[in-house]
Amino acid sequence: MSQQTTALKPNIAVYTDPQHNLWLDSALPSVDDIQAGVSLEPGEVVVQIRSTGICGSDVHFWHAGRIGPMIVEDKHILGHESAGEIIAVHPSVKHLQPGDKVAIEPNIPCHACRPCLTGSYNGCENVLFRSTPPVPGLLRRYITHPAVWCHKLPPTMSFEDGALLEPLSVALAAVERANLRLGDAAVICGAGPIGLVTLLCARAAGAEPIVITDIDQGRLEFAKTLVAGKPGTLATYLVERGHTEQEIAEGIKMGLGGLEPDVALECTGVESSIAAAIHAVRFGGTVFVVGVGKNEMQFPFMRLSTHEIDLRFQYRYANTWPKAIRLVDSGVLKDVRKLVTHRFTIEDAVKAFETSADARSGAIKVQITNL
Amino acid sequence: MSQQTTALKPNIAVYTDPQHNLWLDSALPSVDDIQAGVSLEPGEVVVQIRSTGICGSDVHFWHAGRIGPMIVEDKHILGHESAGEIIAVHPSVKHLQPGDKVAIEPNIPCHACRPCLTGSYNGCENVLFRSTPPVPGLLRRYITHPAVWCHKLPPTMSFEDGALLEPLSVALAAVERANLRLGDAAVICGAGPIGLVTLLCARAAGAEPIVITDIDQGRLEFAKTLVAGKPGTLATYLVERGHTEQEIAEGIKMGLGGLEPDVALECTGVESSIAAAIHAVRFGGTVFVVGVGKNEMQFPFMRLSTHEIDLRFQYRYANTWPKAIRLVDSGVLKDVRKLVTHRFTIEDAVKAFETSADARSGAIKVQITNL
Amino acid sequence: MSQQTTALKPNIAVYTDPQHNLWLDSALPSVDDIQAGVSLEPGEVVVQIRSTGICGSDVHFWHAGRIGPMIVEDKHILGHESAGEIIAVHPSVKHLQPGDKVAIEPNIPCHACRPCLTGSYNGCENVLFRSTPPVPGLLRRYITHPAVWCHKLPPTMSFEDGALLEPLSVALAAVERANLRLGDAAVICGAGPIGLVTLLCARAAGAEPIVITDIDQGRLEFAKTLVAGKPGTLATYLVERGHTEQEIAEGIKMGLGGLEPDVALECTGVESSIAAAIHAVRFGGTVFVVGVGKNEMQFPFMRLSTHEIDLRFQYRYANTWPKAIRLVDSGVLKDVRKLVTHRFTIEDAVKAFETSADARSGAIKVQITNL
Amino acid sequence: MSQQTTALKPNIAVYTDPQHNLWLDSALPSVDDIQAGVSLEPGEVVVQIRSTGICGSDVHFWHAGRIGPMIVEDKHILGHESAGEIIAVHPSVKHLQPGDKVAIEPNIPCHACRPCLTGSYNGCENVLFRSTPPVPGLLRRYITHPAVWCHKLPPTMSFEDGALLEPLSVALAAVERANLRLGDAAVICGAGPIGLVTLLCARAAGAEPIVITDIDQGRLEFAKTLVAGKPGTLATYLVERGHTEQEIAEGIKMGLGGLEPDVALECTGVESSIAAAIHAVRFGGTVFVVGVGKNEMQFPFMRLSTHEIDLRFQYRYANTWPKAIRLVDSGVLKDVRKLVTHRFTIEDAVKAFETSADARSGAIKVQITNL
Repeated sequence: MSQQTTALKPNIAVYTDPQHNLWLDSALPSVDDIQAGVSLEPGEVVVQIRSTGICGSDVHFWHAGRIGPMIVEDKHILGHESAGEIIAVHPSVKHLQPGDKVAIEPNIPCHACRPCLTGSYNGCENVLFRSTPPVPGLLRRYITHPAVWCHKLPPTMSFEDGALLEPLSVALAAVERANLRLGDAAVICGAGPIGLVTLLCARAAGAEPIVITDIDQGRLEFAKTLVAGKPGTLATYLVERGHTEQEIAEGIKMGLGGLEPDVALECTGVESSIAAAIHAVRFGGTVFVVGVGKNEMQFPFMRLSTHEIDLRFQYRYANTWPKAIRLVDSGVLKDVRKLVTHRFTIEDAVKAFETSADARSGAIKVQITNL
Repeated sequence: MSQQTTALKPNIAVYTDPQHNLWLDSALPSVDDIQAGVSLEPGEVVVQIRSTGICGSDVHFWHAGRIGPMIVEDKHILGHESAGEIIAVHPSVKHLQPGDKVAIEPNIPCHACRPCLTGSYNGCENVLFRSTPPVPGLLRRYITHPAVWCHKLPPTMSFEDGALLEPLSVALAAVERANLRLGDAAVICGAGPIGLVTLLCARAAGAEPIVITDIDQGRLEFAKTLVAGKPGTLATYLVERGHTEQEIAEGIKMGLGGLEPDVALECTGVESSIAAAIHAVRFGGTVFVVGVGKNEMQFPFMRLSTHEIDLRFQYRYANTWPKAIRLVDSGVLKDVRKLVTHRFTIEDAVKAFETSADARSGAIKVQITNL
Repeated sequence: MSQQTTALKPNIAVYTDPQHNLWLDSALPSVDDIQAGVSLEPGEVVVQIRSTGICGSDVHFWHAGRIGPMIVEDKHILGHESAGEIIAVHPSVKHLQPGDKVAIEPNIPCHACRPCLTGSYNGCENVLFRSTPPVPGLLRRYITHPAVWCHKLPPTMSFEDGALLEPLSVALAAVERANLRLGDAAVICGAGPIGLVTLLCARAAGAEPIVITDIDQGRLEFAKTLVAGKPGTLATYLVERGHTEQEIAEGIKMGLGGLEPDVALECTGVESSIAAAIHAVRFGGTVFVVGVGKNEMQFPFMRLSTHEIDLRFQYRYANTWPKAIRLVDSGVLKDVRKLVTHRFTIEDAVKAFETSADARSGAIKVQITNL
Repeated sequence: MSQQTTALKPNIAVYTDPQHNLWLDSALPSVDDIQAGVSLEPGEVVVQIRSTGICGSDVHFWHAGRIGPMIVEDKHILGHESAGEIIAVHPSVKHLQPGDKVAIEPNIPCHACRPCLTGSYNGCENVLFRSTPPVPGLLRRYITHPAVWCHKLPPTMSFEDGALLEPLSVALAAVERANLRLGDAAVICGAGPIGLVTLLCARAAGAEPIVITDIDQGRLEFAKTLVAGKPGTLATYLVERGHTEQEIAEGIKMGLGGLEPDVALECTGVESSIAAAIHAVRFGGTVFVVGVGKNEMQFPFMRLSTHEIDLRFQYRYANTWPKAIRLVDSGVLKDVRKLVTHRFTIEDAVKAFETSADARSGAIKVQITNL
């Protein structure tokens, strides 16, 4: 085992539980184990986590205790948007060494089931996904992880940038699988963190024109700032209480200069927003749903049927990190950095979560740092 | 104008109206006009309709007066599954001549809108579709139609075969757009006329294994008979009152020997059947909805989301007739003929419709003949 | 017929012939015919051509008398990259009126053959393509053309911009059909007019990194200037005499920071350049050939085979004008304007052609104007 | 380790070398090692090979010593089409046990490179492929192999059937990647073992009509027998010395009743045959090359270009065994069995190879059995 010699602080993590508590406590692997090289299996490395973003799902697990079939049933470590520094590697690992800066892809698929062997490892039947109960997450100081899922960062990229690659991966997967193309008219429903990253990706992929919707005018303003200075048209549409799905659909088309969108990238997971997108897209268009929501939802079936609309969905991501690194490193998606509005140390994790959960905080992406 | 000289009977048609009447009455073009060559525009031909199938939508327009946004608001000619004989051609028409046996593709698209120019003329923004109100249908003795939408039949095919190409087109479009492939595990939901033709197409496309569902054991038996003698596995699943969506999904998988289907071809348009299909298909699979139904429907959203299921839809068809002719002519889909269970002359059209509408009649496809 | 009343100059055109002459002569329709409304068929308009770009194929027809199977066998009008002003419309035309600024899509497909009905009207079996012998081209003062192939320009766009939509269409078709996506590593082979427009489109579609090759350092410098200021990486590779295909392939990969390209957009049609692209792309990658060249060519077959490389081709374009207009109008592709390096009036057409044909002129795109 | 107790014969294998010798010799793992459980790594099993087909590439390695970049540089074990019986399993293996009948997928990919992670493990950058030098093949009595690449056979399938799944996999991969669909007109170039399996798959996938070409009338007759009794049209075309590419293309179209094929499945790897296929397919069609051949080949470039023909290639296969088992087990592809014309024991391996290599033997597929 190759290993760094820097003094290590005790390993701690951010926990929640079924009673909706949120607290810091000690975590594995212990510093003693790390220094002794214990439990580092072939192909694994130890990463000192340096930056971790808080995802809406982290807040949801804390507040609601579940997302669909995924339920917090015991004390549970949160966090899956992380980057850090390699501090130990198993001798079998060749492409990484201590001191390397890496972004962590938070999944450990089996490499043997049908989805894995066909390139959709996000559908792995045996996946361990960091922070999805009961698999503990990344919001700790140190983690053991397979080297193949640690992506080396170029010198231009910070740990903060590295942690942003996870939400960026969601958006890249969506833009790729939704088959968004140069010159496609697009609507992005929702200007939260995923909606905003998706906006950056859609613009970078040449979508034109674009309209983005939200129920919060502040977020729409943020969206405009985010792409200011880039060539192309961005309209915004404020969804107000009482708007019907058809009215929202009309607003979307007006924002596109009268065009029906080719693609809707739905980032809210809200029933009425999805229905509005279905009413807006053109014959043969795609409503691509990135957001998650209620177990059951009502959709305008006959509109889907008579317009041959493809209603499609995204679950996590596969094979996005290398592309994400390339796009941030080169500057194409450098503005993803603007999404980080608040930063806290891990010792202040509870405050970080409270800020992330507070709609009035103006927070887009809150990151937690291990100093 | 080139024209046949046989004596022609008066033109009559099968009408319905908003009051749900069904009757025979005189129709255009008149025999005098046909013989005088009046109103035959460039590119058009006159067809003597010889066989017409009754579609579920014909019965629905009669009984319910509407299908979604399409409403019977005046006296209205039904019928869009027809074949016949060319009896007159405009001089500009080169590939057809009087005496030719043709199947009629019942749409007249504009050739200028985006869907037309991109090969999806089923989405034409200005389409005239025979029998969709207010465009009168084909259930008459003579019709003027663009030659480009009259497909010449080979000697092996009867008028009855030609009329079957319309429902066959629906199934071919579905199997093609659903991307059903050799060795795909498939479920076909519904063993009505469209479900049964879809079964024939799915078998011919190499789907394996296949399970078909219905609420009527008689239809499931008919399905088994339909593909008897062809290599491959067909299971049936009887949907009974009180079955939950999850139970039906389990029944589907059991019918496939434990496999989750790659593709569900949903031919009922019934909410619970679509939901069951969504619960059944594999990660990344497709639920392809051919059937039409209620304006709004409830679907298991989180299942769609966590399994990246594509929910897709079929509206009519494009470019299917040449392929359909080839497949029936060659014998690959010759068994489509077995679907015609009842035949009536146009004079007995009302009886034909009553038979088609009567669940106890055992009718699969009722055809109306002009002798 | 609706018509403008401005005084019209005599109609003249730029002709070549099998003896490689190039001259101006009178052309149809005559001003008398235009003013009398003669020979304006339903659906047609008369356009006063205002700007026309010279294409490499125009020069080739002049100098070589043929491109593959297309041969100049008589006196022949050149030109197919044009925009102008509507001066007369047939009463059946509703979406255009005199005074409208339009770009001309130079094809007149049949709307009835298989390619037309399936959305690939560039493969129309009966197409009339302006300037492909024996169909006379657009390099004249007035032309009668179907309204459906005249695309209205927004106020932001000049006639010069409108004429650029034709080469832009070639590039848009290539980028779309080559399935170039956000984050794809790409090589563009050739920095002539089509290579440069393709570079703009590839950058706008988010390709990253990009390397462009040429045998002329000046063109590579022009390429760099063209995308200067846009985020993203552009490397150039100068192909020198004596470089083997493998050496060029290595140079391409070096330009991409060691990556094998996902997509090669081959804009030269030169055998060794295509072979180099084949040696460069990754397993499962695409070599997409836009350029035309010799009837027969030798390719590295075993490389294609063992790397499952898709070798694909572009022939003209379909359905690109609306998208092209949107992208130039919005500014996403506004830099296409930088390609016009020389302008001449139609009276100086011979000089314009000589400039276009002269490698030392530094000309990228030469346009001819009707004042 | 779980293990069978039957008495084992010494392990022997079929070797060739750069001097084109072919002989039997002892091989690893030794019976002692198997019985001691030595060198069975986690995830591995020991298979007693029971049936192995001889591939054209085996004969080629023996006679020519190389295929493109793959060169026999030392003594080398041949064979990669095998099925057998599990006789030992590592304790980590859960889904297989001694006594199980399995087909062997002869590749061991790395699960970590880009092609592996994107579902194209046939392009694995670190693959070990049994029988491709320097990786020794399967033509022996016992082999250690990863359990994930041993596919359990249902009771209906013999070892002989299991060994046929490898050539069947090539054809299934081709038919799937070539996107051959129900009702597509297809030409299959070459009626050797791969051409014939491809014919079975194309027929099962609903291609209609089909024409198959070869230079040997006997093989064409065999092809006709192979699909006799199945609905659908099969024409044959005998390629004779002196036929031009265009003449062959005309012959193909005539065999299809005048249709240009949508897809050509090229199973010869011969330059003139590929060129003929290019001349035959329709605008926008696909020439899909399964066969391997010379390093460099000449193709009709302008035909490819003006007809937007996709020239695509197959290298081995990925994810085909489960589908192949399903299709043979169900009877859909049961006729693949008819391809085995000769059988030898491993002791007679040299005679088996001589038969396979002898064009006059009438051999289609020769299999070698371990009794």
